[in-house]
Amino acid sequence: MKVNLNHLSNEPTQKGVEILSIGTELLLGNIVNTNSQWIAEQLSSLGLNHFRQSTVGDNSARISDLVKEISSRSNLLITTGGLGPTPDDLTTEAIAKSFNVPIYEKPYLWDEIKQKLRNTKLNNDTSSLRKQCFFPKDAKIINNPRGTAPGMIWEPIKGFTILTFPGVPSELKAMWNDSAFDFIKKNFSDGYVFFSNTIKFSGIGESNITEKIDDILKLKNPTVAPYANLGEVKIRITAKAKNESEAKILIKPVKEKLKNEFSEFIFGENDDNLASVLIKKLLQKKETLVFAESCTGGLLSSSITSISGSSKVFKGGIIAYSNELKKSLLDIPENQLKKFGAVSKEVAETMAINIKQKLEADWAISISGIAGPSGGNQEKPVGLVYISIAGPENHITNIKKFFNPNRNRNEIQRLSVNLCLNSLRLILLSRGK
Amino acid sequence: MKVNLNHLSNEPTQKGVEILSIGTELLLGNIVNTNSQWIAEQLSSLGLNHFRQSTVGDNSARISDLVKEISSRSNLLITTGGLGPTPDDLTTEAIAKSFNVPIYEKPYLWDEIKQKLRNTKLNNDTSSLRKQCFFPKDAKIINNPRGTAPGMIWEPIKGFTILTFPGVPSELKAMWNDSAFDFIKKNFSDGYVFFSNTIKFSGIGESNITEKIDDILKLKNPTVAPYANLGEVKIRITAKAKNESEAKILIKPVKEKLKNEFSEFIFGENDDNLASVLIKKLLQKKETLVFAESCTGGLLSSSITSISGSSKVFKGGIIAYSNELKKSLLDIPENQLKKFGAVSKEVAETMAINIKQKLEADWAISISGIAGPSGGNQEKPVGLVYISIAGPENHITNIKKFFNPNRNRNEIQRLSVNLCLNSLRLILLSRGK
Repeated sequence: MKVNLNHLSNEPTQKGVEILSIGTELLLGNIVNTNSQWIAEQLSSLGLNHFRQSTVGDNSARISDLVKEISSRSNLLITTGGLGPTPDDLTTEAIAKSFNVPIYEKPYLWDEIKQKLRNTKLNNDTSSLRKQCFFPKDAKIINNPRGTAPGMIWEPIKGFTILTFPGVPSELKAMWNDSAFDFIKKNFSDGYVFFSNTIKFSGIGESNITEKIDDILKLKNPTVAPYANLGEVKIRITAKAKNESEAKILIKPVKEKLKNEFSEFIFGENDDNLASVLIKKLLQKKETLVFAESCTGGLLSSSITSISGSSKVFKGGIIAYSNELKKSLLDIPENQLKKFGAVSKEVAETMAINIKQKLEADWAISISGIAGPSGGNQEKPVGLVYISIAGPENHITNIKKFFNPNRNRNEIQRLSVNLCLNSLRLILLSRGK
Repeated sequence: MKVNLNHLSNEPTQKGVEILSIGTELLLGNIVNTNSQWIAEQLSSLGLNHFRQSTVGDNSARISDLVKEISSRSNLLITTGGLGPTPDDLTTEAIAKSFNVPIYEKPYLWDEIKQKLRNTKLNNDTSSLRKQCFFPKDAKIINNPRGTAPGMIWEPIKGFTILTFPGVPSELKAMWNDSAFDFIKKNFSDGYVFFSNTIKFSGIGESNITEKIDDILKLKNPTVAPYANLGEVKIRITAKAKNESEAKILIKPVKEKLKNEFSEFIFGENDDNLASVLIKKLLQKKETLVFAESCTGGLLSSSITSISGSSKVFKGGIIAYSNELKKSLLDIPENQLKKFGAVSKEVAETMAINIKQKLEADWAISISGIAGPSGGNQEKPVGLVYISIAGPENHITNIKKFFNPNRNRNEIQRLSVNLCLNSLRLILLSRGK
């Protein structure tokens, strides 16, 4: 579902910024255009009116025509791609051609490239890298701290400026942050910024949220937009204001309204994820955590250990993928496995109790289920998962969940991990009260 | 590095296909445009000339103008986004406006929506979903099996056809596969197809590969393009031919040349990954696998258990994140931990030997290292990893690796997992000889 976004693109008479991505690999679908998204985000944060994005292949005539076209309707163009040494890297010369301007070598750039590659043998006359030193006479150079291909800032006609960047994301980002950001801010920003705050939800569906906040979704400033990922919903609140602190003042009442309405469904903000929030909570309580995993096969543990500092809370776990290991490592009685099956409330509960005791932790989560695509039957279909959480004072919580069997293996594993983490988060919350 | 791509975009006089993505969230940088890449890949596989992609916001006048512009230079336009029920979903009416054509309700579509949402109360007069039933009179409807918003196939002027799709990727894909693919193939494909074969490498860097295959990189049909991911290099060979089998004939000699040149660095093709290849190898040998993980904290296990059928090979593992568990679960002697530290060849080797014995497997991999960002020192910096592989007949391999400490935690963990999997793959290969 999309919502009203009070973006300045609603003012059609204003001139604005465009992004042009250059590369035949984009037209072939070989790579996803993440550069456009990154630049778009940067332009948003600068409060710039960004109306349109285009992509073309490595074709000189098409690049020239398109740049010419853009110069007639916009005042700033950001390009990525086509600055390298190969015959297919045509951006600079094609842009120059749009305005019938020759390009010249800037000799100091060649010295810089030689310096950067001082451990490589370069031929002064034949090196393909030399091509990267040619620019229109009055272009200013954007230094590339991560590679050899510089970019340029060039105003070929009054009121129209072009900034060029390589297609390699790390080079683009470094050059943007080092040089371009300040230039654009100084010369093109109207002094306003867009600032966003993202509120994150677990255990509730997108439609259950949006139907309760119809009024908020209609706001103009800040704007409020929902996004759904696997097992997680995000609400992004974006304000336009003179600066970040004024934007925060606009955002605050919306945030508070969401917190009042959805309280425990909200687990965090911005860069938080369920694992990082859980680790923080356990750290506060000085409690430790262990896992006994079957169907998630290590994914639950790795979601926790992907967070720096998790070792203060997480002691370890056992992945008992086979029944043999459930018996030998987790002491699940043979008759329990026979009577109830490995995917059962009984086995999950014993797994949680035993691992908690064996690994001497405050909290243990166990999980056993059928991630598919095979292994399911009518009684225990693909998507069936049992989770058990054992805590202090013999606290036991058992959860049975049927995930949609049309989900693929990886989705069922990831949804299971989310459910484990969110369930323990809710238990800790309720105990904190 | 980019290479020559003999794409038809080098023939500027031909009319072609364009993709138009509609959504202000794309201009705000809130989401990455994965739809364009997916459609581009589809168009490639149909051998269609795809010259240009554009993105605009949810602004009726801009959408209209852009569609009009595209109709003057292309013969097929694929749009995504803006088909939903909210006021910002403007695509159909804006496209109709480009050609001064009114839109009418197709009543049967409303019946279909009501049927799809039969468990929801819909108001005949006020439901916002009703908007989704309005189309130009002679538009053909593309049924949406995954959602409520249909698309259309419409030829507003002779020689120019528009296909519209929602922005939700799963809906777009289902509609494309169910209806659009055949329509486009029948009406727009010239009978040629692009067919790709991707060869995958591990244990060798991109530049080490490309500098040895300069001649291959210059080919016109098939074209050859290298891509580098974290710890993996891919070479994509793309041929244009009358059909798949003719394309395969063109690809074959290039593939063989790569296999001769790089032999054991090549681990697979297309959808293979290191884990799936390793599981296949172990299945053939009827050998089993277990892990003792420290710094990768479950990621090694989950890379294996993400593959369906892994349970036939993988028995389980122990994640001994704390030293306490290294002692209690993996029987690492206290004095070994004290003398050498947890991150050492000695401890890694004992971990591998002990887990292999305890879990009764043919192969065991252990890993201990410093994933960072903290925990490193001069002697044992962030990025230092010890891997030990224990196999049949007391086969022990010890590996010490320094990953670049500027890598983030997650990258070091993922590179470590790749190194574990690739090392065992190479051992199995050498034993198979």
